[in-house]
Amino acid sequence: MSADGFDVRELIRAKRDRRAHAPDQIRAFVAGFARGDVPDYQVSAWLMAAFLNGLDAAETDALTEGLLGSGRRFDWSALGRPTADKHSTGGVGDKVSLILAPVAAACGVLVPMVSGRGLGHTGGTLDKLESIPGFRTRLSPEAIRAQLDRVGVVMVGQGPDLAPADGKLYALRDVTGTVERDYFIVPSIVSKKIAEGAGAIAYDVKCGNGAFMKDPGAARALALRLVATTRALGAKAAALVTDMSQPLGEAVGNALEVREAVALLRGGGPSDVRALTLDLAALMLRDAGVAADVGAGRAAAERALASGAAWERFTAMVEAQGGDAKVLDRADGLPSAPVRVTVAAPRSGAIAAIDTFAIGERVVAIGGGRRAAADAVDPRVGMIVRARLGDTVRAGEPLAELHTVREDAESALRIAACFTIADTAPAAPALVIERID
Amino acid sequence: MSADGFDVRELIRAKRDRRAHAPDQIRAFVAGFARGDVPDYQVSAWLMAAFLNGLDAAETDALTEGLLGSGRRFDWSALGRPTADKHSTGGVGDKVSLILAPVAAACGVLVPMVSGRGLGHTGGTLDKLESIPGFRTRLSPEAIRAQLDRVGVVMVGQGPDLAPADGKLYALRDVTGTVERDYFIVPSIVSKKIAEGAGAIAYDVKCGNGAFMKDPGAARALALRLVATTRALGAKAAALVTDMSQPLGEAVGNALEVREAVALLRGGGPSDVRALTLDLAALMLRDAGVAADVGAGRAAAERALASGAAWERFTAMVEAQGGDAKVLDRADGLPSAPVRVTVAAPRSGAIAAIDTFAIGERVVAIGGGRRAAADAVDPRVGMIVRARLGDTVRAGEPLAELHTVREDAESALRIAACFTIADTAPAAPALVIERID
Repeated sequence: MSADGFDVRELIRAKRDRRAHAPDQIRAFVAGFARGDVPDYQVSAWLMAAFLNGLDAAETDALTEGLLGSGRRFDWSALGRPTADKHSTGGVGDKVSLILAPVAAACGVLVPMVSGRGLGHTGGTLDKLESIPGFRTRLSPEAIRAQLDRVGVVMVGQGPDLAPADGKLYALRDVTGTVERDYFIVPSIVSKKIAEGAGAIAYDVKCGNGAFMKDPGAARALALRLVATTRALGAKAAALVTDMSQPLGEAVGNALEVREAVALLRGGGPSDVRALTLDLAALMLRDAGVAADVGAGRAAAERALASGAAWERFTAMVEAQGGDAKVLDRADGLPSAPVRVTVAAPRSGAIAAIDTFAIGERVVAIGGGRRAAADAVDPRVGMIVRARLGDTVRAGEPLAELHTVREDAESALRIAACFTIADTAPAAPALVIERID
Repeated sequence: MSADGFDVRELIRAKRDRRAHAPDQIRAFVAGFARGDVPDYQVSAWLMAAFLNGLDAAETDALTEGLLGSGRRFDWSALGRPTADKHSTGGVGDKVSLILAPVAAACGVLVPMVSGRGLGHTGGTLDKLESIPGFRTRLSPEAIRAQLDRVGVVMVGQGPDLAPADGKLYALRDVTGTVERDYFIVPSIVSKKIAEGAGAIAYDVKCGNGAFMKDPGAARALALRLVATTRALGAKAAALVTDMSQPLGEAVGNALEVREAVALLRGGGPSDVRALTLDLAALMLRDAGVAADVGAGRAAAERALASGAAWERFTAMVEAQGGDAKVLDRADGLPSAPVRVTVAAPRSGAIAAIDTFAIGERVVAIGGGRRAAADAVDPRVGMIVRARLGDTVRAGEPLAELHTVREDAESALRIAACFTIADTAPAAPALVIERID
């Protein structure tokens, strides 16, 4: 029996035997785990029972509340403006947050964004930002508040006081084979977003060969659960299921992606990144209450890009967080790799498939990402992807340009092998597969 | 990755996904757990995955080998005689070990019996023996060897060097809801019996309302697994599935059961205890190779009882282990309770059912057993059960005689309620339901 008067053994047996938990049992269980009263070995037995026997919607919501309750919860209501945020499940070349957050701020929404680092084949927003010299991603709660009030947007790492039980639970899931379940993933994501004080959240759930979820049906199910649980915890939510069967935009790699984001913020940049940013902004602005509907939200976001207001918010954020915004204006301002290797098309034809996962993995392999959480990241390396699905190429034309620290024939060969060139290609897939709203 | 070059996470995921383990993976896993290299939280996740998804026969055997390999294994071959033992899954009034072990010793078989204590509604052989003043159940390996050579029988508790991973694993199963599975129970039992050096094992798997297994089918399945795994580990084995829908014999409680065992060893005592002892002895003696078949084994066991040879082995063992064998000859020699309460039949009729579990629980409640492993046991208390299934009783006749430390009307009422008296009763069940041989 725990001090809360519930029996952890009985809770484990209940899930083992497919009996549902009452919400307050789950909250007490997580609270006990967070305090150290419920030992790891009982939590991991419960995790495996739940992995195999499932958690329903009410249980998922309660687990989210339990994780949320383990730490502080920011409340920005005194600042007098609506709050919103976005979350992506992770892809290759996904620099949308860097553009979207200042766009929303420029439209009058506070964006208290807590982001993560790259792990595995996908990049992380914090790593990208840290390619800007001086940029700090650890701020005190007081500094976050002051910046949010003054600049309207802040992008930081998860402090130890936000949903600490989530990190502890993830560490246990990681070593006990209990990672890949929606009802564990959703509480982990939502508890942090609610803890940071976001009142409206737009989710970008990616699917395809560059995403963690390969299958649109699985991505849709996750999107539905994210939206439902976020709403159950009192925030507004919407989601897009988006295609990740090719990199998003052209740049993959930290400094290269910042450069592309800067191009977007100044009104240029690849059209797919721009389109997805506007689609997510439309949801955020509507749900934050600063736009009447998605059409009005999209229009406001377009104005924020066209007017330079979003760019101004971005540079103000960079300066506020210790970064040197002046470097962003110079072509050679950000760290750049000493070696460029052009990857040429081995034959003429149409791009029929791109192994997006392998592209992400190759960027990790050349130093642009992490295999383990403690690895260092080289901000300079990465690649510019020149060919997109459905494009026609001639033999010898560039498919991609590799940015590396040394000549690397193996990587060039491997990148070339990521592109399937056929006589004909299917139609390029739609970027937004479904909106969950 | 562990030092043995196998990945515990992969092992957990395999069982989670219903993939079978190679035997050497399980052995390395248990060895790592025994050394402390594999943490509890990974073992408990695996336990839950195996609880829900199962272990096949080869995996069960390998788990047994892993537990066995975590400690020492006695080898009595230098003593030049066959070894054998028995194991009961636990019942109410089951004092067979006290009689059977000296019977086998009297027939030329070495019995290096490692026994347990009572927990829950069933008694334990060590508690029974310790009602004999001075009897010690902790002996050094050297003392065990010397006694086995000289007396032929020793009855001790499990030392810390016999299958230590079993105790560690059981502690984890107990707090993670992963106790009740044959493929966990079998390795726990068999590893200890093989470690003590028994070359032939007779199992008594009990079923009915006084047993851990209520259902004959489940008891049969456990008996089959016990026999198969024991044989896989190189020992001979046979099993009886026996009825536990009423107490075995008349005495329930530690000193009372020793007194009944003494009566048996001197040629008297209840016929059911005698019959079961002879049936198990027949299997042990045959499998140890000192009898040609079960008929010859049974005859040898009967002679050992009739000649006093088994009684002589028992008293020699008691003396060798520090006990005062002289008290066994006196009616008041063993500790006895100060109060006797007769439980009378409330009506005339036939005994149609006996709540054997409740009888065991009541003996625990009056101090004769343990609810927790640290509880003390009062050797004096218990009861003599006078009525058996199918017996005809008249109102006011004794159903049982309670031996307690104080007048206890509540216990008397509760014991009376354990007997269902009807106008007619079904035929008394057979004691031996099936032989697995």
